[in-house]
Amino acid sequence: LISKLPHIGTTIFTVMSKMATDAEAINLSQGFPGFGADPILLDLVAKYTKGGFNQYSPMSGIPALRSILAEKTKLTQGYLPDQETEVTIVSGATEAIFCAVTAVVREGDEVIVLEPAYDSYEPAISLNKGVPIYVPLNSGNFSVDWEKVKDAISPKTRAIMVNSPHNPSGYVWTLSDVNQLAELIREKNIYVISDEVYEHITFDGKTHCSLGAHPELREKTFVCGSFGKSFHVTGWKIGYCLAPAALTSEFRKIHQYVTFSTVTPIQFALAEYLEVPDRYLSIPEFYQKKRDLFAKGLAETELEFIPSSGSFFQLASYGHLSKISDRELAEKMTKELRVACIPISVFYSDKKDDKIIRFCFAKEEAELEEALNRLKNLS
Amino acid sequence: LISKLPHIGTTIFTVMSKMATDAEAINLSQGFPGFGADPILLDLVAKYTKGGFNQYSPMSGIPALRSILAEKTKLTQGYLPDQETEVTIVSGATEAIFCAVTAVVREGDEVIVLEPAYDSYEPAISLNKGVPIYVPLNSGNFSVDWEKVKDAISPKTRAIMVNSPHNPSGYVWTLSDVNQLAELIREKNIYVISDEVYEHITFDGKTHCSLGAHPELREKTFVCGSFGKSFHVTGWKIGYCLAPAALTSEFRKIHQYVTFSTVTPIQFALAEYLEVPDRYLSIPEFYQKKRDLFAKGLAETELEFIPSSGSFFQLASYGHLSKISDRELAEKMTKELRVACIPISVFYSDKKDDKIIRFCFAKEEAELEEALNRLKNLS
Ligand SMILES: CSCCC(=O)C(=O)O
Ligand SMILES: CSCCC(=O)C(=O)O
Repeated sequence: LISKLPHIGTTIFTVMSKMATDAEAINLSQGFPGFGADPILLDLVAKYTKGGFNQYSPMSGIPALRSILAEKTKLTQGYLPDQETEVTIVSGATEAIFCAVTAVVREGDEVIVLEPAYDSYEPAISLNKGVPIYVPLNSGNFSVDWEKVKDAISPKTRAIMVNSPHNPSGYVWTLSDVNQLAELIREKNIYVISDEVYEHITFDGKTHCSLGAHPELREKTFVCGSFGKSFHVTGWKIGYCLAPAALTSEFRKIHQYVTFSTVTPIQFALAEYLEVPDRYLSIPEFYQKKRDLFAKGLAETELEFIPSSGSFFQLASYGHLSKISDRELAEKMTKELRVACIPISVFYSDKKDDKIIRFCFAKEEAELEEALNRLKNLS
Repeated sequence: LISKLPHIGTTIFTVMSKMATDAEAINLSQGFPGFGADPILLDLVAKYTKGGFNQYSPMSGIPALRSILAEKTKLTQGYLPDQETEVTIVSGATEAIFCAVTAVVREGDEVIVLEPAYDSYEPAISLNKGVPIYVPLNSGNFSVDWEKVKDAISPKTRAIMVNSPHNPSGYVWTLSDVNQLAELIREKNIYVISDEVYEHITFDGKTHCSLGAHPELREKTFVCGSFGKSFHVTGWKIGYCLAPAALTSEFRKIHQYVTFSTVTPIQFALAEYLEVPDRYLSIPEFYQKKRDLFAKGLAETELEFIPSSGSFFQLASYGHLSKISDRELAEKMTKELRVACIPISVFYSDKKDDKIIRFCFAKEEAELEEALNRLKNLS
């Protein structure tokens, strides 16, 4: 069987998590919380499972969850999607991204990808025979170089992949970023696939600007979101896509034949859980405490870093300490210091090695402290 | 946005289930059980959810579920896949089919589809720019016309979609069918995507012949299975793909970027549930009672039918009673008799209307009896 994705091996997340397990290291590599979810939410899943809500949900998701999501989006993002035609529940944000790319990208279409970029964008584009056009983010703080984006746009540009808060850097788009994107693609037939899975995790008073909240952009954008990331249940694989009716209609044609629908009892549980409107309120503070603790501890190591502004990731550079590759350092750190991290060269199309590693700080304080203790031995 | 699937509207399952709800009809259209799952299994989901098994599973599925599935396949199908390299857990059999088709089919590749066929095959093929080559099943009992399949094979044939027990007809492949397929594609570079979601639902002593159990075919086949169909939990969206290592490796590259992984607590629940090896044993008898009841009742109506041999579907023809289209009849029956069914013209590429409708008999006996009572008024 000739491979459709010959360049793809095992993801770095699988590689590093396995290495962490084998070395009995603290696993700050793959991005998942090291603590439990709200027992109320877990009880609700039990309630709806035992209560017999176990058959197919509607293809687009149960109405209660879609409408509550529409309401929530109004509160947090300032616009109210019509739940019937603009909200779809899917089996994780990865599925949302895959379906949105598939709905839009045809053979030869160019898709702008700002890198470093999450590893699922390129395969989704390639499977649809699109051509990723890579634009580097600014080194240092990973903000967007809008001149470079402008230069990358061609008559063949069909879409741009956007991700804020940004994985792996934690950069959070400003309103100016949003406006510049709107201006750049005004009156162009370019769609936006906006990965906003860390929408609720922003720090230092920075707020998430959803592209769905921008009156022009919302007409061209697939907003891809995740319940798993917000509620500490990444293994539930439940997310959503918000897009105007015309785009949602094409999105659903793909979703219908990719997975058809998403776990029913979990949809009911989330819908009831979200009837209390402030479930999201405590998330930024909860994670900022962890970010602060981790940044403070990192400052006492030999690593260099800029505090993350969002997401549950923190980058750190070590080029002043060592010239070994980031993959080698990640392996060494996992096996010798017993702290696993992600080498961010994997997020670059050319595997560019800037000597930067990524830590996930979505862990209990004690675990973070122990990891920081171990990292003090880095030299 | 120009549609990638311009011919696709809302699936018939959504249309008919909605019509059934609106008309307060008994819904024998979309295939889902009208009764609960084993409370033991439901309790296990609650146990693992509350027990904190809520983060990403490995991309290929948790080892315990994969190995138990490999064991079970040995018992029920006579071969033992290596769970590490040949078993993948996915978000429903629809995802398995989509990923297998995507792994195999390239632009211009021909894919043989025996019709009537489940509605997700064609979009999966078309999205990969394959060309579906339709071969009609024999009218009457919906067995395979192997001469016609042979004639359909060309140098461009890359895959064949197989489905036994068959939806919508309930035809169950014989060992002779399996052997004829093996012979036809011997030494040809043709893969098989085998939709075996009703593997445990066969009647009258007929047994399911998995293509995975055939020594030659297993080397070329993606066996797509479903836990939801076997354990009355279609809304859990959890299935699997069995394929030899070389095919699984390509399958997983797709799965990794389509959904990445599948609901963790449900995987743990199924793994523990299946530690008791005979969980599947009672399924054929359980459903045969329903099939018998339904067939007996149908015999008292004006409809004509051949008893289903497998799956939870029963076809019936009405051409001797009326010349209206099957879609019209389904609508009329739903609104006037208040029994919803599926018009099977939707399962044909050319919407061929043989005046046949499909009933799902995965319902409580009382519900089936009431439906049969109502169907007596058909004339
Ligand atoms: C799907 S595994 C990867 C999780 C994640 O988003 C990350 O670690 O970046
Ligand atoms: C995914 S909804 C359709 C369920 C089904 O398999 C059928 O009714 O044929």
